[in-house]
Amino acid sequence: MENKCDITFNGDESLSYFANGKSLCWFLESKLEEQIKRLHNVVGNAIIDDHYIVVALYALSPTDQLEPISVVSTTPFYLSYPEVTNFVKLGLHKWTGDAKTFEKNRPYIEFITSPNNPDGVIREPVVNGDQGKLIYDLAYYCPQYTAITSIANHDIMLFTVFKCTGQSGSRIGWALVKDKEVARKMTNFMDISTIGVSKEAQFRAAKILEVVSDSCLEPKMENFFEYSYDIYLKFFSFLLNLKFILFFETTFAWLICKGGDKEDCEKLLKEHKIHTRSGSRFGSDSRNIRISMLSRDEDFNIFLKRLLAFQGSTNRN
Amino acid sequence: MENKCDITFNGDESLSYFANGKSLCWFLESKLEEQIKRLHNVVGNAIIDDHYIVVALYALSPTDQLEPISVVSTTPFYLSYPEVTNFVKLGLHKWTGDAKTFEKNRPYIEFITSPNNPDGVIREPVVNGDQGKLIYDLAYYCPQYTAITSIANHDIMLFTVFKCTGQSGSRIGWALVKDKEVARKMTNFMDISTIGVSKEAQFRAAKILEVVSDSCLEPKMENFFEYSYDIYLKFFSFLLNLKFILFFETTFAWLICKGGDKEDCEKLLKEHKIHTRSGSRFGSDSRNIRISMLSRDEDFNIFLKRLLAFQGSTNRN
Repeated sequence: MENKCDITFNGDESLSYFANGKSLCWFLESKLEEQIKRLHNVVGNAIIDDHYIVVALYALSPTDQLEPISVVSTTPFYLSYPEVTNFVKLGLHKWTGDAKTFEKNRPYIEFITSPNNPDGVIREPVVNGDQGKLIYDLAYYCPQYTAITSIANHDIMLFTVFKCTGQSGSRIGWALVKDKEVARKMTNFMDISTIGVSKEAQFRAAKILEVVSDSCLEPKMENFFEYSYDIYLKFFSFLLNLKFILFFETTFAWLICKGGDKEDCEKLLKEHKIHTRSGSRFGSDSRNIRISMLSRDEDFNIFLKRLLAFQGSTNRN
Repeated sequence: MENKCDITFNGDESLSYFANGKSLCWFLESKLEEQIKRLHNVVGNAIIDDHYIVVALYALSPTDQLEPISVVSTTPFYLSYPEVTNFVKLGLHKWTGDAKTFEKNRPYIEFITSPNNPDGVIREPVVNGDQGKLIYDLAYYCPQYTAITSIANHDIMLFTVFKCTGQSGSRIGWALVKDKEVARKMTNFMDISTIGVSKEAQFRAAKILEVVSDSCLEPKMENFFEYSYDIYLKFFSFLLNLKFILFFETTFAWLICKGGDKEDCEKLLKEHKIHTRSGSRFGSDSRNIRISMLSRDEDFNIFLKRLLAFQGSTNRN
């Protein structure tokens, strides 16, 4: 979109720790708050009116605000959940693994990632115990990855700029939280750990979200989500012709290799200079691999070339 | 300095998690690394050649990389040390208080903040036990606050952009670390907690540090540190005429009220719309207060007006 997303900072901007001293989340910039609300309204993927917005460094936010407790998610799960949960011997919670085998008569936190990373499956709570706190990780609940079938309205919902627009280097996400005390604890955690969130990243995120919303509303602009969807479709159409089984389409491809029982596909592909993540990291099988699809055309073409070369070499064997 | 510190981000910049995949601190941008090295060379306040540089969200970095251990500092100490150390029930270390009363035959970590926050005193290690790990917090070891009398060359040294130039909203600091394993653990901590540090904040910090170094080297530019020093001197010269005792000059004024024995000076001044931090938060006395001096002329003038009005009212009592 040419220079529509450009943003310039002067030397004397953003000097204070504070963004809005009167707000519960005192370090959340009003501009970003406004654009987060607008985008949810435009996309229709989440209710925001009776929620508090807490801007956060995404990976941290889910792990602090609750009692010492078991944390579970259904396999295959997002590979960072175990390490974030067991973060430097935190006494508050422990990673307990697959939600499918959890004894439901104890307190627990369940991550519900929907669509799921790595396999893109739409998920519902699995444990369904009486003492559960549910965290909905909706990073991929965006129109370019999945149909927006309903307006999400859960107690705790997580979103991130990166999964929507690609600026992974900015480290910006947000939580929509119904309970004021939970929102306050999350804010307090961010206060103690990092005294807020980089303003430059917040303002840039606000700018980019603004242009994304504009693109959905202004007929003269190309709709960002439709444009993105078309690109993924193009990428995946190439992969569909391979001998791997393609499991789902999202920002990642989740592939199941048809090889032997104990094949380590990550290792196998690494020998052909293709960097993937083994399914074993997601609580799944090493015959499965996750491939990131968020790449530019040039990179995708190199990837495809190597993958075809690899396929050729295995055919010869 | 007009628009010399301006920086513009395009929409398609800074997309990756990675900055330099080959570096130990893989999320540290080369531009920032270069400017950190340059500034230390220009100012002459720290040796960098045999140290690893880890860019970090400042408040977190000191607290993770070591064994379960007592953490101490001499009173009055930086008010965030206790809460950061006891951060969400971390099992790794515990805040143990005043270094002066610590039994030295046990393992410990000692924060040595020099010049000290809040009172600006130049400090040396106090415990001097056999099993100590020393963290030098050199945030104020800058030419506008104190004379640079030697090149610091400690195992772990902390610096921050904010104390040098004022961009507290950016949340950028760095550690100079001699031991490779300690540097690796700090990097790993940042990886797990926030998957790196906002690139926008890093690039802007690099830009600002570049201009600061330029100002020290180019005769046509006004030297940033001399300019800052002159401003503080002007602010403090006003305060020196007050009936308070001014304790030290740095980015903060540390005032000792001459009032009654049990006076709560923070509360007293708050009634006159002057926001300060009580000495009790720094392990010190509530008759002492810390006042931030990093303000613009307009704010300082309002502050001074209120302080004079307060002095007038106490004279009448």
